Amino acid sequence: MAETDMLDRMVRIGLLYSFYGGLLTEKQRQAMELYYLEDWSLAEIAAADGVSRQAVHDLLQRSERTIVEYEDKLGLLDRFLKQQQTINSINKELEQVLVRVEPDSEIFRMLKEIAAKLAQMVELDSAE
Amino acid sequence: MAETDMLDRMVRIGLLYSFYGGLLTEKQRQAMELYYLEDWSLAEIAAADGVSRQAVHDLLQRSERTIVEYEDKLGLLDRFLKQQQTINSINKELEQVLVRVEPDSEIFRMLKEIAAKLAQMVELDSAE
Repeated sequence: MAETDMLDRMVRIGLLYSFYGGLLTEKQRQAMELYYLEDWSLAEIAAADGVSRQAVHDLLQRSERTIVEYEDKLGLLDRFLKQQQTINSINKELEQVLVRVEPDSEIFRMLKEIAAKLAQMVELDSAE
Repeated sequence: MAETDMLDRMVRIGLLYSFYGGLLTEKQRQAMELYYLEDWSLAEIAAADGVSRQAVHDLLQRSERTIVEYEDKLGLLDRFLKQQQTINSINKELEQVLVRVEPDSEIFRMLKEIAAKLAQMVELDSAE
């Protein structure tokens, strides 16, 4: 797998986890957090849990399959990502307005605030 | 229950259904759609299915409990509704800008378009 594909996959699993992690078992969640968020290796997680590397691998694979299946059924991440895209494109249009408005005007200041709020919405979504 | 509370409850169940309906059984989904979207009575659904009114009542109650439990675990509807609120408040701020901009100007037209897109985002969310 190319490096960017791998990165995309990691980001996607992270997003799926942030959406559907609440449906996993405590054990599954713990393994996923260590592996995907804390960047532990399979061997490190295995050593900490006193199980085999293969057992951790299987646990992670089952967890991933579970959250992917939930997304297949509900599509809520997809819906959310589309909304993010829309917000991004709206913010680009707003930038086009801003270059036409006199800086230091009240309108400019108000629009800047709106743009900041829109940008924050998109940030929060991906960070959560 | 007051009439508005009842209405709020119906809207909320409809939203929960639009989010988590994919996790219900076909039979549960069908009953919920007839009751909540098509406005059939319990007796009508019971007659169509050849079961008792009580059986339909129980089926609906179980379905509702299921989608409420999913929301308790995931909170995705809550997250979505908060985003809607933010979009609504941004749109109100945009209206405040619009009254300060010369109508028929290019900026006015551009901002109107942005406001329409934001309004559409909020509509789509609740309609889906």
